[in-house]
Amino acid sequence: MKVAGKHYLTIWMDGNSIFMINQNALPFEFKIHEAKKYTDTCHAITTMITRGAGAIGAAAGFAMAQAFIEASGNYETGSAEFQSFIQKARYDIESTRPTARNLFFATERVFQAGIESLEGAKQEAQRLADENIADALKIGEFGNSLIKSGTRILTNCNAGWLGFVDYGSALSPVYVAHRSGKEVFVYADETRPRAQGARLTAWELQNEGVPYAIVPDNAGAYLMSEGKIDIVIVGADRIAANGDAANKIGTFEKAIVAKEFGIPFYIAAPLSTFDLSIPDGTHIAIEQRSEEEVHYQSGPDAEGTMRTIRVTSPGANAINQAFDVTPAKYITGIITEKGVIIPEKNTIESLF
Amino acid sequence: MKVAGKHYLTIWMDGNSIFMINQNALPFEFKIHEAKKYTDTCHAITTMITRGAGAIGAAAGFAMAQAFIEASGNYETGSAEFQSFIQKARYDIESTRPTARNLFFATERVFQAGIESLEGAKQEAQRLADENIADALKIGEFGNSLIKSGTRILTNCNAGWLGFVDYGSALSPVYVAHRSGKEVFVYADETRPRAQGARLTAWELQNEGVPYAIVPDNAGAYLMSEGKIDIVIVGADRIAANGDAANKIGTFEKAIVAKEFGIPFYIAAPLSTFDLSIPDGTHIAIEQRSEEEVHYQSGPDAEGTMRTIRVTSPGANAINQAFDVTPAKYITGIITEKGVIIPEKNTIESLF
Repeated sequence: MKVAGKHYLTIWMDGNSIFMINQNALPFEFKIHEAKKYTDTCHAITTMITRGAGAIGAAAGFAMAQAFIEASGNYETGSAEFQSFIQKARYDIESTRPTARNLFFATERVFQAGIESLEGAKQEAQRLADENIADALKIGEFGNSLIKSGTRILTNCNAGWLGFVDYGSALSPVYVAHRSGKEVFVYADETRPRAQGARLTAWELQNEGVPYAIVPDNAGAYLMSEGKIDIVIVGADRIAANGDAANKIGTFEKAIVAKEFGIPFYIAAPLSTFDLSIPDGTHIAIEQRSEEEVHYQSGPDAEGTMRTIRVTSPGANAINQAFDVTPAKYITGIITEKGVIIPEKNTIESLF
Repeated sequence: MKVAGKHYLTIWMDGNSIFMINQNALPFEFKIHEAKKYTDTCHAITTMITRGAGAIGAAAGFAMAQAFIEASGNYETGSAEFQSFIQKARYDIESTRPTARNLFFATERVFQAGIESLEGAKQEAQRLADENIADALKIGEFGNSLIKSGTRILTNCNAGWLGFVDYGSALSPVYVAHRSGKEVFVYADETRPRAQGARLTAWELQNEGVPYAIVPDNAGAYLMSEGKIDIVIVGADRIAANGDAANKIGTFEKAIVAKEFGIPFYIAAPLSTFDLSIPDGTHIAIEQRSEEEVHYQSGPDAEGTMRTIRVTSPGANAINQAFDVTPAKYITGIITEKGVIIPEKNTIESLF
């Protein structure tokens, strides 16, 4: 990805620290956050300094490697204390965000590698990040086949660069299409309450020079009824064996509306997002976040000073469900690094 | 309606002035706005100091009466200048918000009465406001028949007290049910960008002591899939002869999703919202509001100082369509002051 012309990754490891683009500061300030210990990385995931299925996966892998570094520095390798520390670290990392499959995929792989050697843990975490980039690019290339010049895409939340180590999932096909010279236009759901669409997707698309407009979350059916949407592409946080997909709340609603209008609805996600251990979406744990995210918003005032204001009636109650689950029957296809597949058990199993 | 125990109307005329609850100051401050001239009342409608289909209708009727008062004070009754002033005033009032049928219904009635006499114009404007209250109460009583104890209602925007002179349309059945001792629960769509659900509906429900929660606009399908919604009731700004209904953006999306889950979807509106001159919803003019409403939000900071902040990526583009049109086939019924009807041409015509 390019930020003001300079190449960046969303997250990377250097020495014992994990560095990441601070996504809570965006789009108003571009700054890099350093997490020195695995607990710092956990905190960055929980508070969404880094967020998005792929970026969370990379962060979790790096955090697991940090835990091995810290354990090796403090305890004899393989001792009871060492093992206890690593087990607790894995538990801490996996407790940060319950829905994203990529997180558990990453901790498992680095945990297994770390049992062999510290160097193995670090290499495995880096390998995960490298695969994340390669997979995202492949998703972009396969997804590009669904996009013609003139295609108008609706997306929800941010499944772009910032949600991965680079390229993204749902936005990767958009970037590949745009770079190949196709004219594309993106409608970005605002995605309340954290407004990842209005803040992160809009910021990414601006940096890439892709034409777009932010739309309030309630505008989907209107846009489709006016013939303004050709395809819906969104990311996913966990996909069950039958193709049911958990993603940012609102995804299910857009899928139903797209089906009503006969508009193709695609999920874009790497195989690391699939969880074959669960038969369908009813088994996906859905994160309930604080209602304070609905009640307060932050941003700069006219002088540029960051302010946090109340945007709902004082004393009001709110519900803040972070994700919903879209049943496979509403999904036209899933764009993976191995091709575009139909969301169906046998097809999904054949990929693994 | 009761505000902190004291009885209020949303809008009323006293002398030559129109007084109204300032809905831009709510829910953070309760204050009464005075519009001394018809142009002040027009400004209050445009800037949404008063808003909601029914309140706009009452405001337009009062503004037309103000225009007759001003014309009578400045010109000889019936003179060319008098007529020119009145014609311009009517044009100004009808240009404030294009979608709400009630507005045109009101200007027409007061205009015709004012041609007879100044006193007639003032009486007709007051009669419109009184009818507004009576119709809203009747809507509540008819709508109450659709609500059982335990019913959970989803609504969009604010079609409550504040959207009428009293009682409301979509919320009137909720208030009648609640006062009759039924247990009800309201899920209030936040309704970005102006957040009338999070600000006005939540404030109203708090004042009435009705249990509720604000939900992000994208949560409808999730709530329905979890079996948490028994009925959807929303207002309308204009209903065509065939039952197609324009209402706050998001209404169409909720109607599609409700249909998918087999959840009854009702529009609540008085007959003054119907426009029999148009055969269907494609003829309804839809207001496009400034995209700045998407980019900026206002509210108090932790010290209580009102601040306006940017909530989207600086320099971003946005689309702010105020309404959408829900085709009749998605509407289970329309709750009017003459009963609950099916949205069908002959049935609608038989009411008039």
